[in-house]
Amino acid sequence: MYRQGMKLYTHAPSANGWKVEVALAQLGVPFERIDVAIFRGGSHTPEFLRKNPAGSVPVLELDDGTCLPESNAILWHVTRGTWLQPEDAAAQARALGWLMFEQNQIEPVIGSARYWKLTGRDRGREDELRRRVEQGARALRALDGHLASRDWLVGDRYSLADIAVYAYGHVAPDVGIDLAATPAVARWFARVEAQPGWFPGPAPYGADAMIG
Amino acid sequence: MYRQGMKLYTHAPSANGWKVEVALAQLGVPFERIDVAIFRGGSHTPEFLRKNPAGSVPVLELDDGTCLPESNAILWHVTRGTWLQPEDAAAQARALGWLMFEQNQIEPVIGSARYWKLTGRDRGREDELRRRVEQGARALRALDGHLASRDWLVGDRYSLADIAVYAYGHVAPDVGIDLAATPAVARWFARVEAQPGWFPGPAPYGADAMIG
Repeated sequence: MYRQGMKLYTHAPSANGWKVEVALAQLGVPFERIDVAIFRGGSHTPEFLRKNPAGSVPVLELDDGTCLPESNAILWHVTRGTWLQPEDAAAQARALGWLMFEQNQIEPVIGSARYWKLTGRDRGREDELRRRVEQGARALRALDGHLASRDWLVGDRYSLADIAVYAYGHVAPDVGIDLAATPAVARWFARVEAQPGWFPGPAPYGADAMIG
Repeated sequence: MYRQGMKLYTHAPSANGWKVEVALAQLGVPFERIDVAIFRGGSHTPEFLRKNPAGSVPVLELDDGTCLPESNAILWHVTRGTWLQPEDAAAQARALGWLMFEQNQIEPVIGSARYWKLTGRDRGREDELRRRVEQGARALRALDGHLASRDWLVGDRYSLADIAVYAYGHVAPDVGIDLAATPAVARWFARVEAQPGWFPGPAPYGADAMIG
């Protein structure tokens, strides 16, 4: 039912938004894409805050008007009952575990560091940036240990967990993290990029994201 | 099946571990509690890293030996099919959205700031601490907007979403966040604390967590 008339509110430089676009493309699910100018306040208007009180993209609006915020919760919802989500309850919990890890140890770490660095927001917090880069490198080493003996994060096939962790994981070199230290992660990135329907993302930050 | 012989690896000062203990208590599910001395390296032994490559607690070990890391993924798993998890798919996705918000905007923000402040790790990163406190206050204001017209985060009853967001949300005063600015959040904290089976947590940090 949610597959008709879905609207995705997103912004091209968001890897959180990219996750959902890739999953919907790989599932062949049509949707209307609405760009939100997040660097010009577009996600903090009264209208948008009614869709997501946290004022972040992406938000998926279902055909009945229900709004679902949070990229990984959207990923979960759109992959329910599809080949992109494990069937077994314990495997679903392990996939959710990777989604949580991503929102805790990858997105606010590698993602934030990259955002600061590429948009000029690192000035005045060089120490904090350095600590986030170290934390991001540790997260990739944990991933590397897991992937050393596996092709995919959960079970023996590509799933929503791979999409979610790849999103801000694969931009690690943008903050100076050398993937040579995590060869299993580097090989897994290549496997993700070889999946049918994959396309590159996120888009570069535009001039509206720059400070200074 | 997972309700027999479950082992929860946790540490009392962890509010992530507390979430799972409260949910299991409220569901009346028995489990064996195993304390992991995380400040003495207990979550980074080769044996523990096989349970969770990220080296964090809590981890739930099911009776077949399957290990589930990440507090919110464990919460999801143990509340499946119970009164603590919404039944409707869209409501489940909204609950998951709050779990993601918590792991992204509450736990690494209020939780980390509190950890630094209470254990002496704030020295040398006073600016970073101040920014996290500001970010935590913003997160609570977003919550306050949502709770201004609602008693619970999802639908009209207490659920796993309330447990998850309460865990590191309610310790905000420990980092100097004044709850008078978010009265709907303060009232919601009191509602959570009035639920049958609720108990206070997390435990204070022990001497092993302090740096000198």
